Amino acid sequence: MSESPFVLVQRPPTFDFMDELLSRNFPVLTTHHTSSAPLLVSLSGHASSISAVVNMGMLKIDADLLSHLPSLQLLVCTSVGTEHIDLSECKRRGITVANAGEAFSEDVADCAVGLLISVLRRIPAADRYVRSGKWVKFGEFQLGFKLSGKRVGILGLGSIGSFIAKRLEPFGCIISYNSTSQKQSITYRYYPDAVSLAANNDVIVLCCDLNDQTRHIVNREVMESLGKNGVIINVGRGGLIDEKEMVKCLVEGVIGGAGLDVFEKEPGVPEELFGLDNVVLSPHAAMATPGSLDNIAQLALANLKAFFSNQPLISPVRLD
Amino acid sequence: MSESPFVLVQRPPTFDFMDELLSRNFPVLTTHHTSSAPLLVSLSGHASSISAVVNMGMLKIDADLLSHLPSLQLLVCTSVGTEHIDLSECKRRGITVANAGEAFSEDVADCAVGLLISVLRRIPAADRYVRSGKWVKFGEFQLGFKLSGKRVGILGLGSIGSFIAKRLEPFGCIISYNSTSQKQSITYRYYPDAVSLAANNDVIVLCCDLNDQTRHIVNREVMESLGKNGVIINVGRGGLIDEKEMVKCLVEGVIGGAGLDVFEKEPGVPEELFGLDNVVLSPHAAMATPGSLDNIAQLALANLKAFFSNQPLISPVRLD
Repeated sequence: MSESPFVLVQRPPTFDFMDELLSRNFPVLTTHHTSSAPLLVSLSGHASSISAVVNMGMLKIDADLLSHLPSLQLLVCTSVGTEHIDLSECKRRGITVANAGEAFSEDVADCAVGLLISVLRRIPAADRYVRSGKWVKFGEFQLGFKLSGKRVGILGLGSIGSFIAKRLEPFGCIISYNSTSQKQSITYRYYPDAVSLAANNDVIVLCCDLNDQTRHIVNREVMESLGKNGVIINVGRGGLIDEKEMVKCLVEGVIGGAGLDVFEKEPGVPEELFGLDNVVLSPHAAMATPGSLDNIAQLALANLKAFFSNQPLISPVRLD
Repeated sequence: MSESPFVLVQRPPTFDFMDELLSRNFPVLTTHHTSSAPLLVSLSGHASSISAVVNMGMLKIDADLLSHLPSLQLLVCTSVGTEHIDLSECKRRGITVANAGEAFSEDVADCAVGLLISVLRRIPAADRYVRSGKWVKFGEFQLGFKLSGKRVGILGLGSIGSFIAKRLEPFGCIISYNSTSQKQSITYRYYPDAVSLAANNDVIVLCCDLNDQTRHIVNREVMESLGKNGVIINVGRGGLIDEKEMVKCLVEGVIGGAGLDVFEKEPGVPEELFGLDNVVLSPHAAMATPGSLDNIAQLALANLKAFFSNQPLISPVRLD
């Protein structure tokens, strides 16, 4: 390298945990904007010299923004999902893309299992019951439901889904999955679509990518197939579920409960859910522990270093 | 048997799930009283003909009560712990005692893991954050802590403790234990006392019996050894912890958090805990799902049948 590449770190205001690490290795410019227009204003003269972007928020990176970054060679996303990135435009412009790889997988899997036990055993509802003094006043708390032995269908058996499956095995859960294609090396039973997965399980866990094929993959039909004791856990993306229908299904008792870390219009959450005891709500926090933030910082740096030394990326996103 | 044994079922008012099953097999009398005096009044003339008691609540069975039940041969407790039973007096009178054996073990273990993830990943606090509209108002939620890789010390490696250990293994947790004695068949590291267990772990899980040796086994010294990021999970009995000291330790930050299903003076819970976000409270519900209630009903019946056919009990309590 004749000259150090100039790296833009686009991040939420308080997410400064990566700044020092990256700055020790590259000339870094940090900004925080929620739309591409103000970002471009604040970049002003720098835009043309940026050769890498680390996108830590979910800022949309579209053709227009890319057209203002003519030197951009590498885009590092700190999320696993890349639905906010125009990948075809990146491909057209020869921009390489990296994502979070497995940096968050353990934490998301831990949280998915935590949400599942929390819904079945009604842990947050129990906590409210005790704190509000109802235990003393009304006695016995309404029973929860058993996890051991439940049939759990995983929608998207990638790194996170596999970690969830592995964690649920010693609970005596029977695991099956749906994925873009059946995996030959996996012995869990495969269902070819979301409806059959739901119909044959007590719980479905959503941890697949959000794209045109998976948007609203959990619709009314899937929820009816899951049935009145069925539970949905979503640690993927809000858009995987038809949220409006899900609210109806929860209120009407078409399904039994839900543990939701993600929503269609975050941080907006349908208010009808706030009064329900069979629902556990989490503010898109499944991936976030100090441990995983350290992982992602190291991974972003490793991807930057690899790329600018002409080595293969650690966690590349396939552009096809 | 020349005559069917007369069985007294002592239970909380709403816990009628065993009545039908037992009545189909034995002449059954059901009562619900929280002290032995009113129980004896309501039994009146029947007391002398009772040959078995199924004790579903935590009614204290002491020498005085036993002296009014001269025909009693078998006492079936539906709890694992028998600290409410005068076992020496049972032994002296030749009364056989059974407990819940492993009927609740899976559910208690599931709940212990659920409480642990709930405390570390702050699931009930996150749920409150979303429901109160704070996500929209204040943005990002305070990060939780990683479970994967945590060192977990189990205090009491019986059936429940072993199930908890097995469940935590695929989370990458490093398991160790303290028990009345080291178990030769177990490869987990053994610590000879609660202080060294706490000093060498990030989490301690309490699931041992409550008796004179274990009362307040978790005292101030143990909590100081566990340290400011340490977490206590209690699914055993409230009396295992010096609750007054625990409240201080939580408020002062001597320990990091706690997930508590049991308390010293249930249903009383120290009100200082109600305002803490690093605590998850549960109303002694770890063992209770419809599945485990079915288990315990079947087990109580099996113990009664075995005893009155001169067969070995399924889940005997050793009287020594």
